[in-house]
Amino acid sequence: MFPPESHEPMLAIRSYASSRMPTAAVLSIGDELVLGQITDRNGGWLSEELLKLGLMVNERRTVADDRVAIAAALKELAARAALVVVTGGLGPTDDDLSREALADALGVELEEDGRALQHLLDLYQRRGRPMPAMNRKQALRPKCAQCLDNPHGTAPGIAARLGGSEVFLLPGPPNEMRPMFHDFVSPAVLGITAQAGGLQIATASVHSCGLPESAAAELIRPFMERGSNPLVGTTASGAVVSARIRAMGAAAMDGALERTVQEVERAWAPYAFGRDGLTLPAALGETLRRENAMLAVAESCSGGGVGAFITSVAGSSRWFAGGFITYSNELKRDLCGVPQAMLADHGAVSEEVARALARSAAERCNCRFGLSITGVAGPDGGSIEKPVGLVWVGLCDRDAGHGASTTKARPFQLLGDRETVRERIARVGLQWVRLTALGFGDVPLLWERPSQSARA
Amino acid sequence: MFPPESHEPMLAIRSYASSRMPTAAVLSIGDELVLGQITDRNGGWLSEELLKLGLMVNERRTVADDRVAIAAALKELAARAALVVVTGGLGPTDDDLSREALADALGVELEEDGRALQHLLDLYQRRGRPMPAMNRKQALRPKCAQCLDNPHGTAPGIAARLGGSEVFLLPGPPNEMRPMFHDFVSPAVLGITAQAGGLQIATASVHSCGLPESAAAELIRPFMERGSNPLVGTTASGAVVSARIRAMGAAAMDGALERTVQEVERAWAPYAFGRDGLTLPAALGETLRRENAMLAVAESCSGGGVGAFITSVAGSSRWFAGGFITYSNELKRDLCGVPQAMLADHGAVSEEVARALARSAAERCNCRFGLSITGVAGPDGGSIEKPVGLVWVGLCDRDAGHGASTTKARPFQLLGDRETVRERIARVGLQWVRLTALGFGDVPLLWERPSQSARA
Repeated sequence: MFPPESHEPMLAIRSYASSRMPTAAVLSIGDELVLGQITDRNGGWLSEELLKLGLMVNERRTVADDRVAIAAALKELAARAALVVVTGGLGPTDDDLSREALADALGVELEEDGRALQHLLDLYQRRGRPMPAMNRKQALRPKCAQCLDNPHGTAPGIAARLGGSEVFLLPGPPNEMRPMFHDFVSPAVLGITAQAGGLQIATASVHSCGLPESAAAELIRPFMERGSNPLVGTTASGAVVSARIRAMGAAAMDGALERTVQEVERAWAPYAFGRDGLTLPAALGETLRRENAMLAVAESCSGGGVGAFITSVAGSSRWFAGGFITYSNELKRDLCGVPQAMLADHGAVSEEVARALARSAAERCNCRFGLSITGVAGPDGGSIEKPVGLVWVGLCDRDAGHGASTTKARPFQLLGDRETVRERIARVGLQWVRLTALGFGDVPLLWERPSQSARA
Repeated sequence: MFPPESHEPMLAIRSYASSRMPTAAVLSIGDELVLGQITDRNGGWLSEELLKLGLMVNERRTVADDRVAIAAALKELAARAALVVVTGGLGPTDDDLSREALADALGVELEEDGRALQHLLDLYQRRGRPMPAMNRKQALRPKCAQCLDNPHGTAPGIAARLGGSEVFLLPGPPNEMRPMFHDFVSPAVLGITAQAGGLQIATASVHSCGLPESAAAELIRPFMERGSNPLVGTTASGAVVSARIRAMGAAAMDGALERTVQEVERAWAPYAFGRDGLTLPAALGETLRRENAMLAVAESCSGGGVGAFITSVAGSSRWFAGGFITYSNELKRDLCGVPQAMLADHGAVSEEVARALARSAAERCNCRFGLSITGVAGPDGGSIEKPVGLVWVGLCDRDAGHGASTTKARPFQLLGDRETVRERIARVGLQWVRLTALGFGDVPLLWERPSQSARA
């Protein structure tokens, strides 16, 4: 089995900061963001998009709706980064101060942009109502700055040079901001990286499930050594351990990244399930589609979370039928035929019940695979024998070769709060189905605890 | 019905920044954070906790593992804020540079802290292995700074005064950081606010579901006027519209906040379901418990998400039995008895099927309420008659008064991607159950579209 999971940091990217590569900065504006009352969905998205384009973000900031603070942040960021992307603060109210703050940072006045004003007037005309007086402010931009068309809202963006930096102000709503990023910021990024001699950084990721982070890291240690290029680091997000692979300079432009991705996939087989944006249920779906196999579930402590996770994948109806949420013992009995005596003798969180639920799911839903989850998600309900975090996972395979049907159950002991336990076991369960369909159903899985029972 | 939803900003908190109240800043350290590869779970948490303690965060930053950048950020933030809380960069590797950067900002050397070293040695002794040489660095702190005990990990925290500001370095893992925040930072915050003349800011929130944001704002307009204290702003997160209520100065210390909370609850009745941390399923649970009623579900396009959302509430087994995930038409027929002819004639996304599923859920799970969800979550599968985002929600009440059983279905037309549609309709569905149990089952609900059918 595996060594215990480590919490020591795995990633080491020192060479970048000391190099002279151009960098980007991201600034999010808004009282509610800085107070933590709403979550910033733009900062992380922008960082990832910029990285894809070959430019590394080295600072992100969130400041309140405060003209002086925004202007100070713009000046500080522009002094350090070749590109500054700002989101928010372009609305029509007195609290929307990004354009004023940019004018302050530039040391110029605001002036009305005729084209932007016409765009606003047209927009309201199409909506069939007059433009409120306050919206006129949205046509203002600092002298020497440019307005950027916003096809999805009233707030035009603004572009300007501040010191040696290119500054873009974009609206806060993601559906307005994202297309404008692609239209106006992407070309500027390509210009910056071209000037610096081509692609500066390229990244990829490989995802695994079922390996502890320490074991996953041990398997790819040579690629993680300081100074390697491409350089690999690991990150763990619940049950999923990912390798983040970054190639810089010349290595970003030849096949080095792809070769390292393949090495990591080989090292992590059969636990590696996909690259980049591919999720575990999507990977499971690809496997089940190839096998022409259908899956059903019977969920107790996960309460429907496994089904919800599966059906987050569009097109999952081709390999997922549905199943049972047997949260109460009565429904385990009435919907899945778990005998009352079994529930009384072994309890709902038991190997026997996990097996019975998995078999019922497969048979009653007419699927090859039936997956069951029954455990103590907590925070209450634990005992010495069955502590919080104990989960039995059952898996029935009605086509296990030679027409045989097999049903297995494995116990897992998870740490963490209720939602952590539920999220993690859903992922481990799906990976077990995937591995079984691939013929690797018996490999060790993260968090499995030795079974007290010797039954196969 | 309601006016269309507005996307204009609702909140206006200008009086704060111009006042002389002390503020706080939050700094998160890490390459992976700044690159957007992992999500910062500390910044928002710290902002909320500081706000609860009466101190407003006016800037949040994320910087890479770069000693110069961290030191620059520390100096800039300390010049503007009375308190700076830093998370991350206290590990044992060469990339953990927060303590070095703080020493740089302070202009002093690092020195070894005897007590912190002993804590590290004891920790490894308890783990039964020698301390790796690299961990010795974790006992270093700037001269004139103090180490802070970390009961859950190897990295001690560090506290120091930088300019007029109190600076706290805390470890990045939330399970280590959060207890240390309460032990060491909270008392410092209370000292800062006491010096400024008592509680500076107090906040509360009221949550509603089923009202469009514009209608919700209209109902509480007098409390949202610029300059009001307490001041109310609205935020919409999918189907839930919340009022954020902030009282500053004297109003934070008398009963003004509570009075405003009650006014908002009255204005939003019966849509208001709870305050502060109370979630919609928890509020539904309180209602069903009072009514001694049980709920079951039959989920198609939500795939188990309603059950998962419900069972995120510990103790939900007292009012939620479980149900069916009828993702395929075969399971709608085989598990819930929906007639094949009904599926063929009306399609799975129809009033008839929604009603049949809801009734089956209630009856076959022996519950008073049965809730069904069947729709076109997208991105594919839409048609002119049944576009993406159309969802029929069915609700069976087997105890609708005088022993009568009623089953209704309502069509909703949602916008957004697959996950948005699924998350929003789950919330609307639970609110409909809650309103029905409270006797308000017929009030209009957000996103409902006129039914083509006149059936009751």
